[in-house]
Amino acid sequence: MEIPENPRIAIVGGGSWATAIAKILLETNEHINWFMRNIETINAFKELNHNPRYLCSVDFDLSRISFTDNLDKLIARSDIIIFAIPSAFLKNVVAKATRPLKDKIVVSAIKGMIPDDNLIIGEFFHQQYEVPLEQIVVISGPCHAEEIALERLSYLTFACDDTRVARLVSQLFNCHYVKTTISDDIYGTEYAAVMKNIIAIAAGICHGLRYGDNFQAVLVSNAIQEMERFVAAVHPIERDIKSSAYLGDLLVTAYSQFSRNRTFGTMIGKGYSVKSAQMEMLMIAEGYFGVKGIKEINDQYNVHMPITNAVYNILYERISPALEIRLLTEQLR
Amino acid sequence: MEIPENPRIAIVGGGSWATAIAKILLETNEHINWFMRNIETINAFKELNHNPRYLCSVDFDLSRISFTDNLDKLIARSDIIIFAIPSAFLKNVVAKATRPLKDKIVVSAIKGMIPDDNLIIGEFFHQQYEVPLEQIVVISGPCHAEEIALERLSYLTFACDDTRVARLVSQLFNCHYVKTTISDDIYGTEYAAVMKNIIAIAAGICHGLRYGDNFQAVLVSNAIQEMERFVAAVHPIERDIKSSAYLGDLLVTAYSQFSRNRTFGTMIGKGYSVKSAQMEMLMIAEGYFGVKGIKEINDQYNVHMPITNAVYNILYERISPALEIRLLTEQLR
Repeated sequence: MEIPENPRIAIVGGGSWATAIAKILLETNEHINWFMRNIETINAFKELNHNPRYLCSVDFDLSRISFTDNLDKLIARSDIIIFAIPSAFLKNVVAKATRPLKDKIVVSAIKGMIPDDNLIIGEFFHQQYEVPLEQIVVISGPCHAEEIALERLSYLTFACDDTRVARLVSQLFNCHYVKTTISDDIYGTEYAAVMKNIIAIAAGICHGLRYGDNFQAVLVSNAIQEMERFVAAVHPIERDIKSSAYLGDLLVTAYSQFSRNRTFGTMIGKGYSVKSAQMEMLMIAEGYFGVKGIKEINDQYNVHMPITNAVYNILYERISPALEIRLLTEQLR
Repeated sequence: MEIPENPRIAIVGGGSWATAIAKILLETNEHINWFMRNIETINAFKELNHNPRYLCSVDFDLSRISFTDNLDKLIARSDIIIFAIPSAFLKNVVAKATRPLKDKIVVSAIKGMIPDDNLIIGEFFHQQYEVPLEQIVVISGPCHAEEIALERLSYLTFACDDTRVARLVSQLFNCHYVKTTISDDIYGTEYAAVMKNIIAIAAGICHGLRYGDNFQAVLVSNAIQEMERFVAAVHPIERDIKSSAYLGDLLVTAYSQFSRNRTFGTMIGKGYSVKSAQMEMLMIAEGYFGVKGIKEINDQYNVHMPITNAVYNILYERISPALEIRLLTEQLR
């Protein structure tokens, strides 16, 4: 495709990661379009000059943002559309649009899978909205939104089959606290982003069961090998799984006290039921869907995935966490 | 060599790791010999039933321990001798022995290098004490001694050119909170153990300079690649650097708040001079010697080692940490 010279940029989503991306983009780009589902959130944002719920310390120059709650209008006005909403909502949100996406550059900042369909985000846009793979970009890398708010140096990886497009999009994000690299591995990047949430749940479960730091280090070492095996089976191209987009993203999630997936796992490890942990957290950790998707995909590949299987058995088969993790310990080394 | 059926086991050292090893060994072995340099420490230990300074919560059955402050006596009475003292002291301690070591199995639980000579521990015993490489075993893996005291599950790797010997020694350590694996990579294991201390210093420096968790994850991802490049150059055999003995050991050190190397780095990052940080800590972090050794060894190999070089420049060339780390950030990805 022809890449426009001054592309019009749009963000879809009103959460913390969407807000962090808006902050990054406005460092060097003059203007963004920004879709939020909820008109009240938009109105509150306009009144406060910041997101009413997330990264509230970050003030925005409203004259450089065009808000809308109408996805068709956003699509009409934009060349590059960055999706940053929970994967569980994506299908419903996009379904409301009638305008085609196939001539846009579609960027996934989602790090999840479409539940039930077991599609990674790139596949979803490719298969269901005819977006060519060369126009699909995946953003990855270790990146807590809260640290973006504080302008702490972070590294993002932009993956696309067409690395020219990856580079174009990556350049929009370069600023004094964001460094970017590019990759050609959208599948590996997306699967890794799903798996790191599963591993964070596993780390939380083990923490809740009072396994210590020595064990966590062994768990994460085994987990990155499990990730490497799985993505090599599903999408066998050359990659270094120790890169920031894979290992780095895993580390920041598995070792973070603030990770929702890890917190969810810790509650399970401490004896909460899945239901009560979800109610207590007022939300569903993405890895809860992710582990089901990866497990089902792996039914075709039969990769040895003891950590994924353990999390699946605990969350979906109601096996006791203490028992399941004890069995897991026999398979690690 | 002939491996004795019921080998007589000895520990050299009185620190926390030596004490943790004694606890592990006495889970399944009837008796150990135990050398400490200081007769007062031995006397206090005998009076208290525990180490007077380290892991004080761990009580020992004194009837199963023969203490001595005479290294020759220890050597005469033992088939397997486990060294667990700081690498900086090893040369002086061993120099006091007159009995040969070459018919013993010598086990390094040291995780360091001999300063100035730039020898890993295995090389030191091999070159200077004629111990055949097939009788030298290196213990590695993510293993805070404090977690051994709490009987939290930990995994240790035993490396030896002769994997039969690795397995023999590893079996002495198996117990309900220690799982063991074996390896044939004593060089890679020892270099990795030295490098992880350097990386922990780097992580501390960055933390002291207020870099955040996103950056730490990128630093560690780059660090494990740097480690892989270096050990591949120095000792090119097949290994998976993502194993617990390499990556796991790095993770537990780099992410630990209690790591001495990380604490030392944090003080440097906060503006302490090397001297004053060392005085404040009442000790010298092992990575301080390690970085000099690795840097000097790499003069022959010219491996690209931006993290090691940055730590070296900060500690030995008095380059400002803020400047040196800013330069480092340009080389990471």
